[in-house]
Amino acid sequence: MLDCFFNPKSLAIIGASNNINKGGYHIIKNITAGYRGKIYPVNKSYTEILGLPCYPDVASIPENIDLAIYFIPSKELPETVNECAKKGVKGIIIESGGFNEAGEEGAKLQKLALENAAKAGIRLWGPNCMGFIDANRTYVFSFINSAVWSDILKGGNVSLIVQSGMLSAGFLLHALQEGIMGVSKVCSIGNKCDIDESDILEYMINDSETEVIACYLESLVDGRRFTNLAKKTKKPVIVLMGGRSQEGAKAAQSHTASLSGNYCVSSGAFKQVGIIEVFDPAELTDMARAFSKKMLCHPGGGSAILTFSGGAGTITTDLMEDCGLPLAKLSSKTLDSIAELFPPWNKPDHPLDLWIAIERHGYEKVFKRSFDAIMNDPAVDSIIFHSYATPLIGSGFFKELFELVRKYEKPVVIWAAGRKDFADNLRAMAEIAGFPAYRELGRCVTVLKGIKSHFTKKPTN
Amino acid sequence: MLDCFFNPKSLAIIGASNNINKGGYHIIKNITAGYRGKIYPVNKSYTEILGLPCYPDVASIPENIDLAIYFIPSKELPETVNECAKKGVKGIIIESGGFNEAGEEGAKLQKLALENAAKAGIRLWGPNCMGFIDANRTYVFSFINSAVWSDILKGGNVSLIVQSGMLSAGFLLHALQEGIMGVSKVCSIGNKCDIDESDILEYMINDSETEVIACYLESLVDGRRFTNLAKKTKKPVIVLMGGRSQEGAKAAQSHTASLSGNYCVSSGAFKQVGIIEVFDPAELTDMARAFSKKMLCHPGGGSAILTFSGGAGTITTDLMEDCGLPLAKLSSKTLDSIAELFPPWNKPDHPLDLWIAIERHGYEKVFKRSFDAIMNDPAVDSIIFHSYATPLIGSGFFKELFELVRKYEKPVVIWAAGRKDFADNLRAMAEIAGFPAYRELGRCVTVLKGIKSHFTKKPTN
Repeated sequence: MLDCFFNPKSLAIIGASNNINKGGYHIIKNITAGYRGKIYPVNKSYTEILGLPCYPDVASIPENIDLAIYFIPSKELPETVNECAKKGVKGIIIESGGFNEAGEEGAKLQKLALENAAKAGIRLWGPNCMGFIDANRTYVFSFINSAVWSDILKGGNVSLIVQSGMLSAGFLLHALQEGIMGVSKVCSIGNKCDIDESDILEYMINDSETEVIACYLESLVDGRRFTNLAKKTKKPVIVLMGGRSQEGAKAAQSHTASLSGNYCVSSGAFKQVGIIEVFDPAELTDMARAFSKKMLCHPGGGSAILTFSGGAGTITTDLMEDCGLPLAKLSSKTLDSIAELFPPWNKPDHPLDLWIAIERHGYEKVFKRSFDAIMNDPAVDSIIFHSYATPLIGSGFFKELFELVRKYEKPVVIWAAGRKDFADNLRAMAEIAGFPAYRELGRCVTVLKGIKSHFTKKPTN
Repeated sequence: MLDCFFNPKSLAIIGASNNINKGGYHIIKNITAGYRGKIYPVNKSYTEILGLPCYPDVASIPENIDLAIYFIPSKELPETVNECAKKGVKGIIIESGGFNEAGEEGAKLQKLALENAAKAGIRLWGPNCMGFIDANRTYVFSFINSAVWSDILKGGNVSLIVQSGMLSAGFLLHALQEGIMGVSKVCSIGNKCDIDESDILEYMINDSETEVIACYLESLVDGRRFTNLAKKTKKPVIVLMGGRSQEGAKAAQSHTASLSGNYCVSSGAFKQVGIIEVFDPAELTDMARAFSKKMLCHPGGGSAILTFSGGAGTITTDLMEDCGLPLAKLSSKTLDSIAELFPPWNKPDHPLDLWIAIERHGYEKVFKRSFDAIMNDPAVDSIIFHSYATPLIGSGFFKELFELVRKYEKPVVIWAAGRKDFADNLRAMAEIAGFPAYRELGRCVTVLKGIKSHFTKKPTN
């Protein structure tokens, strides 16, 4: 139903510009970079933009159009909707601001535009948003400066629904910046005058290219619909709510004219339907990146900790208990099976501090033997692995480890500790092999908590 | 009183080695790299190590010695203490393991060594630790591999007290890895058979080179002494406790033979005496780095948020309310004084979303005008500044901003948002100018909370 937005056959860019300092220039530059359908720039001031004929208004476009992108002042929107109706337009992405978020006058314009659109059966996306990006197709229907995305955009399986223009760009950058997570669709939905988070969520649930859905929302237009959709899907749905607090709710209202409902209610409902709630933008992308790896988990036991530092093992145990993640009770069989790696006066215990064994037998041997042992222990359903960053651990090790993870369906989250240069390299190797890897212990624990909670969910129809 | 450890006139390295695969090699290599006093390697197997004459035992050393570093198997410690006594040794750093943490036999050895030391008036540091580093003097009295530290060690004003060998190295690396925080002393205190966290804390409080004290502890030997010391000092004392949870306490016991006391009691006492408690190793170094900048604060009002994204402003407000940080109530005078930067339909509001103004007037002008306005507002005691990472903001801007901070004594914590390459550059500029800067919103809020809580403390004698 939203196909006119995600797969338009032709589109008009109302407010396209030849002036490099204007957003209207970036929109057309971005669209011509990847979109191969028909493009009609609309602007009274030009006859041609980037080699394409430019039309003074929508009425002058010689053919019917699927999708219009609106990027001129708000006051012209209601009339433009009517013009679009005559050209068979099915959807309009309104990227301009100056509507509900800008006081009474803007609210009137938004209301009138919506009425005109409803009469013509046109769906409205926005206003006050940055449009959307489909990284797999290189569709960039947004005024975002191309310098920001052009050399880092990478296709993948994570779709983002973001009720904030800047943050949608921010999330995109944060997701892409490590070069290890790709995105599918990034949707900036702004004031949500018509199309809302539930519409997009439904589309993403049915979209074969989307396997993980991450949202930043400042309100829920229809909380029941949203949670029901999330309840039924097997795809992980991760949500960061803005305006949870009293002062935050006021800020959200002036930002996207959102009236945050009762946050406590939505947070409770999220838990019930298996939505993974996060509280920081970095946590949202951390979590999405972990799920993008498609690791499976069968929660039921506890988590094992493999470490090279007793202190780090202790802190991880504390952080796990803080968020209700149980430590696995390793069987004596498991511990006995690796005892020979240790000196007689240091029997292995859990958390597994492997340092003394590593000093005797080297990293890879000790890690492999330990992983074999704990993967076989039925009390273990997941692992936090503290990997010391040293050039002595190669990418082959992580590839082999990933085979184990696939076989046993016990997810491994990695803490890359040590010198930044070594650790960045280790992280990259681990991520490429298929592991979520972080530089902070707390992030590992939070992500594992999210993974385990998702796999306790039983989607129902 | 601990001067024999931090400023020894001469030292013996018991277990020095010529074998590059042994810790005893790294100890002597590290020490000869910076220490300029007399060095006596002790090892039966060599007559010379790194060009220094090597002695078969302590007794054979021709002169008296200040400090001994012990790195041979645990069973020889009690007798070695007696030998050291005859050479006038005042302190021994025991870096070997195999004592209380390794069962009954080890515990006996630790007890006996301690008795022998007490008789001779020798202070023992460790055992089961990594010794210490004084980065300002390049004293590396540790078996840490020199490849780990040699090209990144940087002197500064932060001293670390760490009850975990590996983590002390880890904290050191984490602190140094950005190249923007220097350290003074890094002390790994292991089993604390004699010298404990309070001894070192007292030393650091009196140490003119130490301005910030950060600790990782798995137990408090004398909680009352520790908190009393912290209460009296103006220097920030930051503590990460390991073994807070039930399972974590067990892990701590097998790690450093620590019997964690009642954690709830210590956490409450920390709060009372103004100790800043943190929960993640990254948070410890984040916080230490912030305090190392020496920004002053006079808590009393609220925090202002300067942002380029309404969404990020909303989330920051939520995170602040989560941890009890109030949002400043900006006066209408303050808001009016920057209104002219905004279009008529978008009056500035708090959180201050400056994007529309930036589009009209550019980053630096808008930021400078806004900072001038809020610094003058008595309701503002601190600022969270979301700086969009763009090459359009130069290092000169941060230098000027820092002058403002110094004048008004209102700390500014920076969120560096945007493309990783730009943001890393912006962070470096900001940090060099004197600001703590982070890539995650949550970290900014946590750090500001720590700063404000420290400056509400009234040190008492």
